[in-house]
Amino acid sequence: MVDDRFFRRAGPFTLQELAELAGAEIAQGSDPARRFSGVAPLSTAGAEDLSFLDNPHYAEDFRASAAGGCIVAPEQAGKAPAGMALLLASKPYRGYAAIAAAFHPGARPSGQIDANARIGEGAEIGEGTEIGPGAVVDARAVVGDRCWIAANAVIGPGVVIGDDSVVGAGATLSHCLIGARVNVHPGVRIGQRGFGFDMSDFPFRDVPQLGRVIVEDDVEIGANTTIDRGAGPDTVIGAGCKLDNLVQIGHNVRLGRGCVVVAQAGIAGSTVIEDFVAIGGQAGLNGHLRVGKGAQIAAQSGVARDVQPGERVAGTPAMPAKQFFRLVGIWHRLLKTKGTKDE
Amino acid sequence: MVDDRFFRRAGPFTLQELAELAGAEIAQGSDPARRFSGVAPLSTAGAEDLSFLDNPHYAEDFRASAAGGCIVAPEQAGKAPAGMALLLASKPYRGYAAIAAAFHPGARPSGQIDANARIGEGAEIGEGTEIGPGAVVDARAVVGDRCWIAANAVIGPGVVIGDDSVVGAGATLSHCLIGARVNVHPGVRIGQRGFGFDMSDFPFRDVPQLGRVIVEDDVEIGANTTIDRGAGPDTVIGAGCKLDNLVQIGHNVRLGRGCVVVAQAGIAGSTVIEDFVAIGGQAGLNGHLRVGKGAQIAAQSGVARDVQPGERVAGTPAMPAKQFFRLVGIWHRLLKTKGTKDE
Amino acid sequence: MVDDRFFRRAGPFTLQELAELAGAEIAQGSDPARRFSGVAPLSTAGAEDLSFLDNPHYAEDFRASAAGGCIVAPEQAGKAPAGMALLLASKPYRGYAAIAAAFHPGARPSGQIDANARIGEGAEIGEGTEIGPGAVVDARAVVGDRCWIAANAVIGPGVVIGDDSVVGAGATLSHCLIGARVNVHPGVRIGQRGFGFDMSDFPFRDVPQLGRVIVEDDVEIGANTTIDRGAGPDTVIGAGCKLDNLVQIGHNVRLGRGCVVVAQAGIAGSTVIEDFVAIGGQAGLNGHLRVGKGAQIAAQSGVARDVQPGERVAGTPAMPAKQFFRLVGIWHRLLKTKGTKDE
Repeated sequence: MVDDRFFRRAGPFTLQELAELAGAEIAQGSDPARRFSGVAPLSTAGAEDLSFLDNPHYAEDFRASAAGGCIVAPEQAGKAPAGMALLLASKPYRGYAAIAAAFHPGARPSGQIDANARIGEGAEIGEGTEIGPGAVVDARAVVGDRCWIAANAVIGPGVVIGDDSVVGAGATLSHCLIGARVNVHPGVRIGQRGFGFDMSDFPFRDVPQLGRVIVEDDVEIGANTTIDRGAGPDTVIGAGCKLDNLVQIGHNVRLGRGCVVVAQAGIAGSTVIEDFVAIGGQAGLNGHLRVGKGAQIAAQSGVARDVQPGERVAGTPAMPAKQFFRLVGIWHRLLKTKGTKDE
Repeated sequence: MVDDRFFRRAGPFTLQELAELAGAEIAQGSDPARRFSGVAPLSTAGAEDLSFLDNPHYAEDFRASAAGGCIVAPEQAGKAPAGMALLLASKPYRGYAAIAAAFHPGARPSGQIDANARIGEGAEIGEGTEIGPGAVVDARAVVGDRCWIAANAVIGPGVVIGDDSVVGAGATLSHCLIGARVNVHPGVRIGQRGFGFDMSDFPFRDVPQLGRVIVEDDVEIGANTTIDRGAGPDTVIGAGCKLDNLVQIGHNVRLGRGCVVVAQAGIAGSTVIEDFVAIGGQAGLNGHLRVGKGAQIAAQSGVARDVQPGERVAGTPAMPAKQFFRLVGIWHRLLKTKGTKDE
Repeated sequence: MVDDRFFRRAGPFTLQELAELAGAEIAQGSDPARRFSGVAPLSTAGAEDLSFLDNPHYAEDFRASAAGGCIVAPEQAGKAPAGMALLLASKPYRGYAAIAAAFHPGARPSGQIDANARIGEGAEIGEGTEIGPGAVVDARAVVGDRCWIAANAVIGPGVVIGDDSVVGAGATLSHCLIGARVNVHPGVRIGQRGFGFDMSDFPFRDVPQLGRVIVEDDVEIGANTTIDRGAGPDTVIGAGCKLDNLVQIGHNVRLGRGCVVVAQAGIAGSTVIEDFVAIGGQAGLNGHLRVGKGAQIAAQSGVARDVQPGERVAGTPAMPAKQFFRLVGIWHRLLKTKGTKDE
């Protein structure tokens, strides 16, 4: 199934080796020496594939699967078809991630600086780092070890990038400090001036945007996402945040650790998001708000007020999610009782 | 009207030639030998221009137009001003498209590989294909005949592109197979890893995304649109789909043939869209849904459930469009009868 | 506070010099010879910093600030802590903008054409203009004086750019005329063909898009924003408009002067926006509408009808904003009185 034109392939691995990679236990009766050559979904896996069952919703696929082996929670193991080798793990999806990464290790930076790359005066490039064709690392920028700056990416003057980070093709970074193990996807824009004007007279006057963007370690930033630099304070993306594609982060926004922002969501200037907040797709947050730790913002909601820690909100303007679902129920009752003739 | 700095110009053409191009009939009394030098809207066209009337809404412009000729449905022909040459066609807009393309043929690829392009090891470039300055065609990629890979576009290792396709400036493609006559606009991102993490523990762990993007023939993909590759299955854009700008397509999404997705709409992971579905601007679709053939999703709606074939939905959460319009009517009646004093 | 890796620094300046730059008056008792070395927010400024108070909301920060000086409206001056030098101005934020720009002047184009830039046949480059590495200025394009075309930007054939304009890294322009002092951010897409098809038969047929994009003077266009060229008429962005990131402008749209369009908003084809209209984030406007001068469109609203001059609208479908706020109040009353048991 996995297309060798696009993915490297390692292995085969024995069940024993995979158990160690995944931190899983080999089920009684499964042969530790059995060999596997790849991973595949339950519905398409064959005798040499290792699959996974995480969502019990797919238990029927599990029962019917021709996979040679599967990583599964102990309480699901009884549903396995006869002859399937089993790895038992409390978090099967996490185990699968480790196994899949072993079979298909990501591309490693070549350690080469392409002849068509442009390295500015005083820039520093770490060991093992690859700089692709057409990429620009401007004056005084510092790129860590084992990084990969892909083709036609542009790293502005003075930018700092930590070890083991990737900047995708055509992405452009300026006025920012990027941590280690950060994955910046193609077309991302970081550090351009924010949307700050004095509008008391026309023509409007640009207000200098004198802050930076700080991206902490282990962050992923989706394709064509935009993150403006701060106006004076910094814009901050906390450690381990995951931003999807086409997300907009305004100037001075601060995201805590482990936040997840789904595609096309937008956060207006100076809003503070505490740790582990989840923001659904196409949601919008006004500026100058505070969203408490662990809050959840439903897709497409429009947040115009602070959100409490752990609170779940939905709707435009956003209200507690339960309230929004009740409101939708009320709308549907009104539809049954009113207006049946005149529209 | 048409600016010669930006568009090539052919012709002039006689009414007879234009009739053949458009598959139209020359109206009685119109001179087949009359010559035209270009196209223009009804309101600005002059004696040497050929215009079109498609939407009867513009019938008044038609009556008053100074255009030398016009392509029009037979039932509208009677409204033509005296002296206007007429081409009769049941689909005047389609006929106009053919005529406009004849007067202003699109740029043809030069067949040259720019000295500043980078062609990777084992890559294959078809005949008549142009590779612009700074463009990268990475190792083992295969680009068909008469393609145009514009300046600073990046085609990743192993990518396959069919004949007569265009990849716009600064677009980046990886992990994908692209059909024939596909038009990828500037800044498009195809094939980057999808938004797949195991979030059972922090830091979240990336789950390898081992699928591809398949773009079938005759697809158009608007500027800065993002299409993630599959997690295991492929992401598929069916033949003849038209995607507008800034659209987001999540991993494993499958679009059937002839779907139209308007700007800034987003489709979350694993949702299946059957043939000829129309999705309005800024609409959002949850993951793991099915949208039946010919369904219509209104602009800005938020789809959280399956949609039946041919169904029209609107609102957030999306409901049958008629119901949504009735709901809006109910809201307006409530506004008349309630709350007039207290807000 | 301001990071010297990213911002140039000028000064120090005396209070007298700053007063002149800002068009402000020195308050009685403040020493015109006092010297300042930079700007900073009230909460972090020190003795050598000049700060500002614009929004009276921050009056407490003002009272408690350790800033050496502050620009402030005369009526707020009485709240200043002892010893703080004061500049009095009716528009303190505008004054601050001038002062901040004096301390941290923007980067100036070097006047150099990079050896890796590609200048097409017949292209003209003005005096003092910088063309970055990998940038392309295609045949017959005309770039004015003191412009900066950043790394890997692509300027298509025949494009015209006025004096003192900036095109950010990786941006791509075609089929357009750009005014003076225009700031195009990284990743912007201007001039690609609009979303115009004849859909009367499948496969759909492209309708040639024969118009241009006209961007007037003093416009700012945010990162990854997309502006399609006209179908026949032009797409026009009026003088002094400010567009934020990830905005979509369809073909034939006309924006008057001084419009502000916040991030992720979208305007469908042929809609006309008069002068000084403000469009909130993620708002969507249907095609073929007219929005009157000075109208305000709330964030996330969905505009499906014309908007009158000066009108404020909100909601989907958009209604007068006051009505929408009343409707939200009605929803909340319904939540109190209905459905408390059954959802």
